[in-house]
Amino acid sequence: MNVVAALHGTHDVRLETRELPSLGEREVLVKVLTVGVCGSDVHYYEHGRIGSFVVERPLVLGHEVCGVVVDRGSRAAKHAIGQRVAVEPGVPCGQCAECRSGRYNLCSDVRFFATPPIDGAFARYVAAHEDFAFALPGTLSDDAGALLEPLSVAIWACWKGGVRLGDRVLVTGAGPIGNLAAQTALAAGATTVAVADVNVERLQRAAEIGSTQTIDLNCSGVEGQFDVLLECTGSESLTRDAILTLRPAGAAVLVGMGPGLEARIPLAAMQAHEITLTGTFRYANTFAVAIALAAAGRVELDRMVDARFPLEQVDRALAATRENPALLKVIVDVAEEEQPERSDRRGPD
Amino acid sequence: MNVVAALHGTHDVRLETRELPSLGEREVLVKVLTVGVCGSDVHYYEHGRIGSFVVERPLVLGHEVCGVVVDRGSRAAKHAIGQRVAVEPGVPCGQCAECRSGRYNLCSDVRFFATPPIDGAFARYVAAHEDFAFALPGTLSDDAGALLEPLSVAIWACWKGGVRLGDRVLVTGAGPIGNLAAQTALAAGATTVAVADVNVERLQRAAEIGSTQTIDLNCSGVEGQFDVLLECTGSESLTRDAILTLRPAGAAVLVGMGPGLEARIPLAAMQAHEITLTGTFRYANTFAVAIALAAAGRVELDRMVDARFPLEQVDRALAATRENPALLKVIVDVAEEEQPERSDRRGPD
Amino acid sequence: MNVVAALHGTHDVRLETRELPSLGEREVLVKVLTVGVCGSDVHYYEHGRIGSFVVERPLVLGHEVCGVVVDRGSRAAKHAIGQRVAVEPGVPCGQCAECRSGRYNLCSDVRFFATPPIDGAFARYVAAHEDFAFALPGTLSDDAGALLEPLSVAIWACWKGGVRLGDRVLVTGAGPIGNLAAQTALAAGATTVAVADVNVERLQRAAEIGSTQTIDLNCSGVEGQFDVLLECTGSESLTRDAILTLRPAGAAVLVGMGPGLEARIPLAAMQAHEITLTGTFRYANTFAVAIALAAAGRVELDRMVDARFPLEQVDRALAATRENPALLKVIVDVAEEEQPERSDRRGPD
Amino acid sequence: MNVVAALHGTHDVRLETRELPSLGEREVLVKVLTVGVCGSDVHYYEHGRIGSFVVERPLVLGHEVCGVVVDRGSRAAKHAIGQRVAVEPGVPCGQCAECRSGRYNLCSDVRFFATPPIDGAFARYVAAHEDFAFALPGTLSDDAGALLEPLSVAIWACWKGGVRLGDRVLVTGAGPIGNLAAQTALAAGATTVAVADVNVERLQRAAEIGSTQTIDLNCSGVEGQFDVLLECTGSESLTRDAILTLRPAGAAVLVGMGPGLEARIPLAAMQAHEITLTGTFRYANTFAVAIALAAAGRVELDRMVDARFPLEQVDRALAATRENPALLKVIVDVAEEEQPERSDRRGPD
Repeated sequence: MNVVAALHGTHDVRLETRELPSLGEREVLVKVLTVGVCGSDVHYYEHGRIGSFVVERPLVLGHEVCGVVVDRGSRAAKHAIGQRVAVEPGVPCGQCAECRSGRYNLCSDVRFFATPPIDGAFARYVAAHEDFAFALPGTLSDDAGALLEPLSVAIWACWKGGVRLGDRVLVTGAGPIGNLAAQTALAAGATTVAVADVNVERLQRAAEIGSTQTIDLNCSGVEGQFDVLLECTGSESLTRDAILTLRPAGAAVLVGMGPGLEARIPLAAMQAHEITLTGTFRYANTFAVAIALAAAGRVELDRMVDARFPLEQVDRALAATRENPALLKVIVDVAEEEQPERSDRRGPD
Repeated sequence: MNVVAALHGTHDVRLETRELPSLGEREVLVKVLTVGVCGSDVHYYEHGRIGSFVVERPLVLGHEVCGVVVDRGSRAAKHAIGQRVAVEPGVPCGQCAECRSGRYNLCSDVRFFATPPIDGAFARYVAAHEDFAFALPGTLSDDAGALLEPLSVAIWACWKGGVRLGDRVLVTGAGPIGNLAAQTALAAGATTVAVADVNVERLQRAAEIGSTQTIDLNCSGVEGQFDVLLECTGSESLTRDAILTLRPAGAAVLVGMGPGLEARIPLAAMQAHEITLTGTFRYANTFAVAIALAAAGRVELDRMVDARFPLEQVDRALAATRENPALLKVIVDVAEEEQPERSDRRGPD
Repeated sequence: MNVVAALHGTHDVRLETRELPSLGEREVLVKVLTVGVCGSDVHYYEHGRIGSFVVERPLVLGHEVCGVVVDRGSRAAKHAIGQRVAVEPGVPCGQCAECRSGRYNLCSDVRFFATPPIDGAFARYVAAHEDFAFALPGTLSDDAGALLEPLSVAIWACWKGGVRLGDRVLVTGAGPIGNLAAQTALAAGATTVAVADVNVERLQRAAEIGSTQTIDLNCSGVEGQFDVLLECTGSESLTRDAILTLRPAGAAVLVGMGPGLEARIPLAAMQAHEITLTGTFRYANTFAVAIALAAAGRVELDRMVDARFPLEQVDRALAATRENPALLKVIVDVAEEEQPERSDRRGPD
Repeated sequence: MNVVAALHGTHDVRLETRELPSLGEREVLVKVLTVGVCGSDVHYYEHGRIGSFVVERPLVLGHEVCGVVVDRGSRAAKHAIGQRVAVEPGVPCGQCAECRSGRYNLCSDVRFFATPPIDGAFARYVAAHEDFAFALPGTLSDDAGALLEPLSVAIWACWKGGVRLGDRVLVTGAGPIGNLAAQTALAAGATTVAVADVNVERLQRAAEIGSTQTIDLNCSGVEGQFDVLLECTGSESLTRDAILTLRPAGAAVLVGMGPGLEARIPLAAMQAHEITLTGTFRYANTFAVAIALAAAGRVELDRMVDARFPLEQVDRALAATRENPALLKVIVDVAEEEQPERSDRRGPD
């Protein structure tokens, strides 16, 4: 039997017993080890919806998943039983125009964990398509395996912004995505990476991972000149100010989602300087790259983890960042009860 | 001696006699034949300024220029005396980071005709750098030579939007730039080119040059799904609506300049569908392409000309589109007085 | 029952009766109307192999297919019964790294018509995945439907070469692919398209479809300066000469396959001028574009057809170009016997 | 007065006294501090020519230059007297089609140090255009300043190959360019960088700067699968083998120049896998990036220096690598005589 933590309504998470997921022929059954808490999980927990996605029946949250393969469908031969894997949480159709064009993140038939009505991974077990499960090298921790998903968001942002050798990059927002965006920009060769936020503790964390400059928005606005903006707050006014720091032909990448459907942008300046603005949505083809970066030590994932809770305390995990906004990353440690030595475990594979 | 039509203030154009321009060593003296009237000329005439560019001393307008080389600087050997040329109206510095990167349109030291304090081409003679004067094939009329400049704007827009074979392109605005953008998109292989405007006569013109669809904005909004938007009105609300017609990963290119410094855009949809928005400013490396397209008959320039005035009536030329908004292109026919047979002339070179 | 023309050995094609193909749940049964004969079909017929692909058991050739949907798998809802379709002849796996990256033509698990051991379309009926069957507009003939496949090769070549507005393109080889490459380059905005061949009749055809220049290789070598080379012969010496005509930073696209595994290229010049050379293999995401181009009249497919044979005479169809090298395209008219009025038929859909 | 080391014929370098160079109005007079010895310098010294470039009159070699500004032309205001600078050794025309397109390295009118008939920098003083002199931060040594030029070659190679996050890069050749290419690929986010050579000492150096794998070509061929090849030997057979290790759609960048005008490449495989091959020639827009990378410690330049000679011993400097092929970089220390404490100097600016 499976055990899941299902969201029944705002602030209402219940532990439930369910059947084990049945496996498609190329799916594997993954025993969950750790799951990262994403801002979107928290938003569903607090509001019961994100935009047009509404929780109308109990929904299992969680889409940043590390686990171990414990069973395989009839034609799933890619991973051995016992293989530790990170799970890419969205499986696209593979045949539509978007999928065929290499931008499967825009597939309208994608099945994505923890997006109504698809259940996520705050559970003992999940099913995953074997092609969307990625074998983890033994040097990566379970937590790192889970955090490959937000790292994917950061890689995608850097790709969209075309971050390259010697670039000056401005990252607005020092939360988990901003932190990873800064790390990834550095890994891509950016030599100036400025991180802006109002939270001084988070700025301190940004400095620790190698950002070359921090901007305390309590004291000053964003200044300087940058090649690329990676916007990770969703703040309309900050986005506007940040766009104005871009050099001619610079690129603004919008990762953070704001509250409204529309926003004001400094269009006249964007025309005079031919600034490009790109919206981003999830990611495509990033997981193998994320593993390579983490395994090579180019990004550090473990140090982002600030708190961990067992599956039985998913509600506490979901409430943690509200109580302490300085927390970067909260982990739901699904394996904890059974294997209490988990926290420092490294995989043997 | 030279004769110029200088703008002294709003609605105040005066014919003046000046010294002939002195030639730099790689400059040529161009006897002007025809000059197109651009919306920016009209804007200076009506308002005395465009944004931060203010007419503070008498300014000669006009930057869409066809003429004939009548003298050469000491090291100017590219064009023979008597060669008919189109003049690219901006000469960048050639050495700054923008110039070296191939985006010389963003050079901050560019000297651009009819942009304060640089005089333009409503004149008997102008000086031009020989590398920015382009020999015209004999099959192109003087008018076509002048209209290579707005055609350059259209080519640049199509390049920025990545218009390619089989694309569905929406052009908002059926004025001269929109008309040329539609023609250029068709030349680049777009198979659906929809043009939207409120002016029915202009829509008729759009249909005549091969647009596959016209949208009368008096009757309906923009509808359909498009790969690329070429926005040529500067209207905030139309821009918003038009962006929403783009397919996932579609591109919005903003050519028209609106009245304000900022504008609202549909950011949430742009994020969900990874729409890219690019501001454009003038053009780079387009003139040779423009000549090739016009000479090959892929775009038709002559049929855009709706009215012509001699140099002595520049004020009438500048007022003409206000009086009749359906006019596509007004030409100042500088050569008229001296060579009245001009209108149907084809060059012999 | 199905009837197929199977290749048993070189020059040995036999008409055979087989079971109708069983349909996968998203497949449709296509009653074949017309099939184009490709050079690769002829090569298998003459040599029994292409490189490492060897005909070891009877193989049905033919992969340029137009037909009509006559039955549907349990979950195939995209096309109505009676819908005329063009069939994209390769179905990739949809999940591997190549597929996910938008270059599914490089999928190593692709199932491609008429490539051992997958049977092709010289048959009364074939099965096709509904996502790889493309509804044909009524304005396109059956022959045009079949020729969307070689047109796809031409589109892919132009994409790889980055053909754009005002480009000067050299096409070496005036066979069916060269002819279509020239047409497609013109449709993409190339204003100079020179076609080189030794066959004077084919050069005449190239001139008729709008090439701006023909080069009779019996009399002269390739000359001029070009932005893009679309090489459609596989000739080593011609490829070398043609590369040397490219401008600095020009692009050479190799479409034609030569007899050997290696070839000599003019490397020193390619380094001094930063020429890029790209190999091409089939195509990806081209069929919708091909339909749009053909339906818009940007390319002409019907005029390429020089001969047609019924299914019973596939051997004659395969031998025809050997007997008359000037033939551009030979069609196997599978529907002929049953519907003799076929040749001028236009679809009603 | 100036002192230069001029090559009069093979193995014939003579110290000569000349007039100081006269300054163009935007030029600066640079007192040379250090100059790196490039393989091309050695080739001129040994053979008197490189391809079509023949030393027909005495030629001053040396084009990797660090110096200090000691005088300025009438309109040269960018650098203060006393400013330490690295000199980009080629000044393009700034106006031709190549220059305007951002690929000024292909300008046919470029004036490039140490390329007949333009003299280079084995001299006490050289003149440099101020826009092609780059202020050095005080943290960079004189040697590092000189080595920004070969670093530029490496940056250009990585750009041309599109090296990005998580890439697997094969560098063939562990000489100075290969060493820097490996460092730059790592800085750009490559997580696998394999370096192949026959020289075991050089492979050791490759390992020290962070290459993840070394391939001793005495013992084995190149193996594995790579995304990008940076070919830095010019060896025809190695190039062929290396191209065959590329993944589908991989990129081969040819940096090393071979002895012949032509070379055999594995064309069939390149077509089947759509491999792209690009020739490279010098670089464009790299110096600012090179400074940023070096100043940020992303690449290490000083540790490449293995030997140094004063200006009076340029012939020994040019012969050094022939005598000891393991040497990575030889420096001509022009400032040595006057300031013998030079070797460990860091700039104060």
